[in-house]
Amino acid sequence: MESPLHRVVIIGGGFGGLYCAQRLKHAPVDLTLLDRRNFHLFQPLLYQVATGSLSPANIAAPLRAVLRKQKNTHVLLGEVTDIDAVNRKVILKWGEVPYDTLVVATGARHQYFGHDKEWESIAPGLKSIEDATDIRRRVLLAFEAAETEPDPVKRKAWLTFVVIGGGPTGVELAGSVGELALFTLKNNFRNFDPSEARILLVEGTDRILSTFPPKLSANAVQRLRHEGVTVRTGAMVTDVHAGGVTLKSGDKEEHVPARTILWAAGVQASPLGKSLERVGAKLDRAGRVFVEPDLSLAGHPEIFVIGDLASCAHQTGKPLPGVAPVAMQQGRYVARLIYSRLKGKALAPFHYRDKGNLATIGRNAAVADLGWIRLSGPIAWWAWLFIHILFLIHFENRLLVMLQWWWSYWSRGRAARLITGEDSLIQPGLAETKG
Amino acid sequence: MESPLHRVVIIGGGFGGLYCAQRLKHAPVDLTLLDRRNFHLFQPLLYQVATGSLSPANIAAPLRAVLRKQKNTHVLLGEVTDIDAVNRKVILKWGEVPYDTLVVATGARHQYFGHDKEWESIAPGLKSIEDATDIRRRVLLAFEAAETEPDPVKRKAWLTFVVIGGGPTGVELAGSVGELALFTLKNNFRNFDPSEARILLVEGTDRILSTFPPKLSANAVQRLRHEGVTVRTGAMVTDVHAGGVTLKSGDKEEHVPARTILWAAGVQASPLGKSLERVGAKLDRAGRVFVEPDLSLAGHPEIFVIGDLASCAHQTGKPLPGVAPVAMQQGRYVARLIYSRLKGKALAPFHYRDKGNLATIGRNAAVADLGWIRLSGPIAWWAWLFIHILFLIHFENRLLVMLQWWWSYWSRGRAARLITGEDSLIQPGLAETKG
Repeated sequence: MESPLHRVVIIGGGFGGLYCAQRLKHAPVDLTLLDRRNFHLFQPLLYQVATGSLSPANIAAPLRAVLRKQKNTHVLLGEVTDIDAVNRKVILKWGEVPYDTLVVATGARHQYFGHDKEWESIAPGLKSIEDATDIRRRVLLAFEAAETEPDPVKRKAWLTFVVIGGGPTGVELAGSVGELALFTLKNNFRNFDPSEARILLVEGTDRILSTFPPKLSANAVQRLRHEGVTVRTGAMVTDVHAGGVTLKSGDKEEHVPARTILWAAGVQASPLGKSLERVGAKLDRAGRVFVEPDLSLAGHPEIFVIGDLASCAHQTGKPLPGVAPVAMQQGRYVARLIYSRLKGKALAPFHYRDKGNLATIGRNAAVADLGWIRLSGPIAWWAWLFIHILFLIHFENRLLVMLQWWWSYWSRGRAARLITGEDSLIQPGLAETKG
Repeated sequence: MESPLHRVVIIGGGFGGLYCAQRLKHAPVDLTLLDRRNFHLFQPLLYQVATGSLSPANIAAPLRAVLRKQKNTHVLLGEVTDIDAVNRKVILKWGEVPYDTLVVATGARHQYFGHDKEWESIAPGLKSIEDATDIRRRVLLAFEAAETEPDPVKRKAWLTFVVIGGGPTGVELAGSVGELALFTLKNNFRNFDPSEARILLVEGTDRILSTFPPKLSANAVQRLRHEGVTVRTGAMVTDVHAGGVTLKSGDKEEHVPARTILWAAGVQASPLGKSLERVGAKLDRAGRVFVEPDLSLAGHPEIFVIGDLASCAHQTGKPLPGVAPVAMQQGRYVARLIYSRLKGKALAPFHYRDKGNLATIGRNAAVADLGWIRLSGPIAWWAWLFIHILFLIHFENRLLVMLQWWWSYWSRGRAARLITGEDSLIQPGLAETKG
């Protein structure tokens, strides 16, 4: 593994890591990209897999395929268990990889505000392909269970879907489940009408999409109503269990019986950040690593932390949001910085260019805040579609993904509404209903 | 559940069950289709999912979507555990469904010649979506393990793929793995050349594709060689374990070290056939139920058994093969028979029209025996493509599937080469190699 070239190791093939790797294509370095998965995941569309519109392969690009022409780059599959910053080595389950420069871009997962153990298995979050197919299975099985459930009270619980968290993911997920019930599953059942389904979007603060201007939040609420979604703001979740959720609004506590609970609330940075504490890294409450204005670790200019794992606050005083554009720009910045250093040049601190904020609500509906203009309705939806297609650049089959979208869009069909995985054979829910 | 209409219950939404249900669309019956999965699976293309060319959703059609306009039809999800033929009820995990006429079409799974327990976990077969994604994971992880394996002997074992069984599934699977190694993965790795991979197709009899004329078998062997596949005929598998297989040719025993072993040899009919033994059904060695010339059970004209679960030998003296066309024609025949009986009419015995036999070997290569003509090479491949597209009639997105094929075909890319599922995170193989 001894190489005469400067060795760059990137951990994580998400937006930050992959964009950094691609920008280093012609750099005189020996580059290694480590990931525990063999694909880059286009997370902004994960909710479409969770609701059966797209297949996993539509939003996942094999890392080796993306980087196959990049001769200076090794892709290695493996789970990184530790970083030995003193000896400059990354520790994997199957061995070690030495580095001269390290880029840590391992992202974040959802967290349950201290209730991880009890709530996670009941209310899955949406971060991985497996999360998405798990949610798809739960949502579809709930409708199947309703079809075989004669008791109207129990059936109502099967037809109640609670989405916790009113950020973009929660809004997209709730809107998409609403569409599924109102349109896609129409005439699919004989013992009930899928439009009876009740979708509850629960948000703790006083409005959903709080990073958008208030007017767009209000638009979103209205639009969600058309998709069959009821928005409950100012409601804290105090309990989550297999039979439903307990919500607290002010002094009032209410129990909502629901068999399907989806989590889109908090995120927690990757645990790999903790292994940097030994060399003096400071972490914030969400586990994010505080970085210098050049995205390096204080005292360790050879280690960079980017994307959702980084807490980068030098620009505005508050940390940049954990969204794809931040990670992409940071990945590219670090690549440029590595180039500059090899040439002995300096580079100005990282500066995030905020090009706007977009969220979809359903078919033909979205909200967009592009700074200079605020949009809602179909125009915002088209802007969203255009931008997302533009950024599917890593996907050799993006034309097919586009066609797949169009098809889902026009037909309101969802070809990928498959119940798969081991539990799909056992159907614990169905079995349990009938005792 | 009491209905004034004649109650028809179909168990199984495969080719037999689904075609039967569709033919009963306008029949004055109360029809229930039971399946433990929520989709119809186009099994002939399952090997393309196993090797990353297609996504599961490309070859699976949600049963409710296919039958949503059929007002006389209920689709119910559930695993049938027993048939109470005396009281005319189907027993599910969550309840019972009474019938006047029953159609059993639950198909077959692979069997391991008495070694099910030891061999199944090592050498997966290819019958379900989960089988296909499991095989995909194993094949792709083997290449990943080879990339991180410094020992050349161990690496060779990772790059050896053994496919057991030289029928159409084995041939298609071996050819497809060969293509993956020779073309798709080209330039994807830095520590080895994927074309070093050795793919062994093992067949116990003296030739592969034994249901085809000998000349086409010979053509297939030659063509497989181009795909990097070595064919070993007259070789019996005497042992399968995690490190490889033991083959016996005549008196000679040979151990082949291989980390990926795929099973395409024997099949065993669905265990549901056994529950019919109580009412006098006779089963053959493969668990198939002997049926009358009208596909009913002797002494039980209200029970039909069709598809891979049936042993139907009245036509030629030997049982019809377990292929999709037989199941489809049987499904349609039973539907017509039910119609006839309701009208008090008789119907001639079932007669299978053999329209030919097709198997693909790889890109642009196939063999076809259409009775009046025998084809091999590109023409056979086009015939295969045409016929399969024709029969994807249940897929609302068949145009997209076609485009997906074309794309895989021309680019030799395989967008769906994702390593997914729980084990993909743990990588037991990789961890084990390095101790």
